[in-house]
Amino acid sequence: MSDAASRSAPLLAGPLPPGSTLGILGGGQLGRMLALAAARLGFDVVILDPEENSPAGRVAARQIVAAYDDRWALKRLAEACDVITYEFENVPADTVAELTALGAVVSPGAKALAAAQDRVIEKSFLAEIGVPTVAFAAVKDADSLAAAVARIGAPSLLKTRREGYDGKGQAWIQRATDAEAAFETIGRQAAILEAPADFGRELSVIAARGRDGEIACYPLSDNHHEGGVLKRTVAPAKVTPATRDQAETIVIKILTALDYVGVIGVELFELAGGKLLVNEFAPRVHNTGHWTQDGCEVDQFEQHIRAVAGWPLGPTQPHAHVEMTNLLGADIEAWKKLAGEPETRLHLYGKGEARPGRKMGHVNRLRPLKD
Amino acid sequence: MSDAASRSAPLLAGPLPPGSTLGILGGGQLGRMLALAAARLGFDVVILDPEENSPAGRVAARQIVAAYDDRWALKRLAEACDVITYEFENVPADTVAELTALGAVVSPGAKALAAAQDRVIEKSFLAEIGVPTVAFAAVKDADSLAAAVARIGAPSLLKTRREGYDGKGQAWIQRATDAEAAFETIGRQAAILEAPADFGRELSVIAARGRDGEIACYPLSDNHHEGGVLKRTVAPAKVTPATRDQAETIVIKILTALDYVGVIGVELFELAGGKLLVNEFAPRVHNTGHWTQDGCEVDQFEQHIRAVAGWPLGPTQPHAHVEMTNLLGADIEAWKKLAGEPETRLHLYGKGEARPGRKMGHVNRLRPLKD
Repeated sequence: MSDAASRSAPLLAGPLPPGSTLGILGGGQLGRMLALAAARLGFDVVILDPEENSPAGRVAARQIVAAYDDRWALKRLAEACDVITYEFENVPADTVAELTALGAVVSPGAKALAAAQDRVIEKSFLAEIGVPTVAFAAVKDADSLAAAVARIGAPSLLKTRREGYDGKGQAWIQRATDAEAAFETIGRQAAILEAPADFGRELSVIAARGRDGEIACYPLSDNHHEGGVLKRTVAPAKVTPATRDQAETIVIKILTALDYVGVIGVELFELAGGKLLVNEFAPRVHNTGHWTQDGCEVDQFEQHIRAVAGWPLGPTQPHAHVEMTNLLGADIEAWKKLAGEPETRLHLYGKGEARPGRKMGHVNRLRPLKD
Repeated sequence: MSDAASRSAPLLAGPLPPGSTLGILGGGQLGRMLALAAARLGFDVVILDPEENSPAGRVAARQIVAAYDDRWALKRLAEACDVITYEFENVPADTVAELTALGAVVSPGAKALAAAQDRVIEKSFLAEIGVPTVAFAAVKDADSLAAAVARIGAPSLLKTRREGYDGKGQAWIQRATDAEAAFETIGRQAAILEAPADFGRELSVIAARGRDGEIACYPLSDNHHEGGVLKRTVAPAKVTPATRDQAETIVIKILTALDYVGVIGVELFELAGGKLLVNEFAPRVHNTGHWTQDGCEVDQFEQHIRAVAGWPLGPTQPHAHVEMTNLLGADIEAWKKLAGEPETRLHLYGKGEARPGRKMGHVNRLRPLKD
């Protein structure tokens, strides 16, 4: 990938003093928890989100209600903010380009977004910097699909290059003859074909890189999905020092190559022999890092604010063992019971309607580290 | 004191579900930290404060900018909120009466406010329930002043009954002949004459009482003032189990007698022999409880929200030793250095002008409990 996107990006003159204003693209729960962390450090927050009265907007000094490509809104945001960050990786590239052209500092920045928005660019980038992933091939039409299946084999997983999450926009190819049907299922979009990973468990590592290049990693977490959606994270994960070293080496390579500023979440497959592959990374605070809110002195949200504001990073060692459970849809109805559990810390997002599968909140259940 | 104020107060039907709205009278730093805690639990917050763009208003869903006796504003607040609390004890009694008449639930409530707003009522109440204080006498004119000095002796401390804090509105009477001059100094207002307390140190206890009468106490803290203003709090304080029992007995008596709901801060004098006297109490979250933000899983702010929302109280045991230091006025200029101290957690209030002595933020410095 090219350096063009970040080549002329504006820089901060130094660490932002308290009282500075931080912009966040996206007003969901991640934006909300970032805004709460920013407020603790004395910053003002402005949210840009098309939805009025968003979860983050309700805890921010101000919300600009507009589409992400609304040039007038972007101008107001750029003028109001000393630094701008985002809570989701599908921020349009043009939005960041526009903000940058307006002189705004946008972190983690365009290069990280470009890699995270397209599965082929992401895996090609990882391969370039020597980070292991499953074997993959780009697919754009019937011919490249046939070539990809010939190379990767079956079973293999066909995914759209862009968008798609929580199991959407993907189809399994069990035999080579299924390929056309799978391509049809994902709407004949530009895609990636991936070899299956025969992994024992999914781990993740949350890390941050400051403006001075300092890197800090949290302990790994052990993640459990249900129906393609994260349900539970346990941290610190029980891993060998060698596994921890592998994960840290991987995340340091990624952060350094992207000249990254902020928190990143890297999802890892642990193979039977202990080798780690990168599944994907998210250039933002991450659901598998929510455990840090109650398990560490400085959580991933404050860490991200520190990084983008040009502050030194905070400590990442844990002081408790945490099991994080997402509250999806009707799970939130258990709030009364959860509120009465002494070891359970609630984090609720202020969302109105508990649609099935919607992330309404999460709980962190704590126990002493030595258990 | 009479029960009239609270006799017909409205009650909550049950614990408030997430998504409910909490009103806070006062938009300063305590309101700000309460609002952040409320947001974490999924509540919306409305601030009432006469100052536009207040520290709390900037992290709340909404701020009503109006005087505390603005009847139209109180009506809007009462309509918007499922429960209302306050961040300062000098909320006018009429404000609470008006809100209550409008059907609003106001906690901790009128009885606690009445006691906390008037030093004679406060100490008389404590005497009634058998909680020890220094000897005191009410003063309203020259005659009662002379009688008070005859009874309490000199040196003794003359304080206005109402308002006055951080050493303001008070004057020492070193000899009986100074009495008139001291009365002049405090503006010949209704006053209280107090015997001096020969105390070794000032401790405080932060506790909470839920709507069901459940009480939870945090460990005591050891407080250090400079120029009449709190500078530093160390917690958990080194105290004997007997001292801890005394403090808990005192706070339980106060909370129970006031039929209190919410967090209270009780300042204590520890005499040479170990006996505790109550100096004063504040019917709200308290500066000497800020250490709980980084020393306990549930801090005093979440605890207060839990109590007023009718939720069960959270655990109060500490997981770290904390030294809290207030950042007063120009102290805030050290933010860059403080941000780089790994053991230091910053809590900044988003206030613009760092006037001398103004509370701009605080830091919690952590070390392991066993040190």
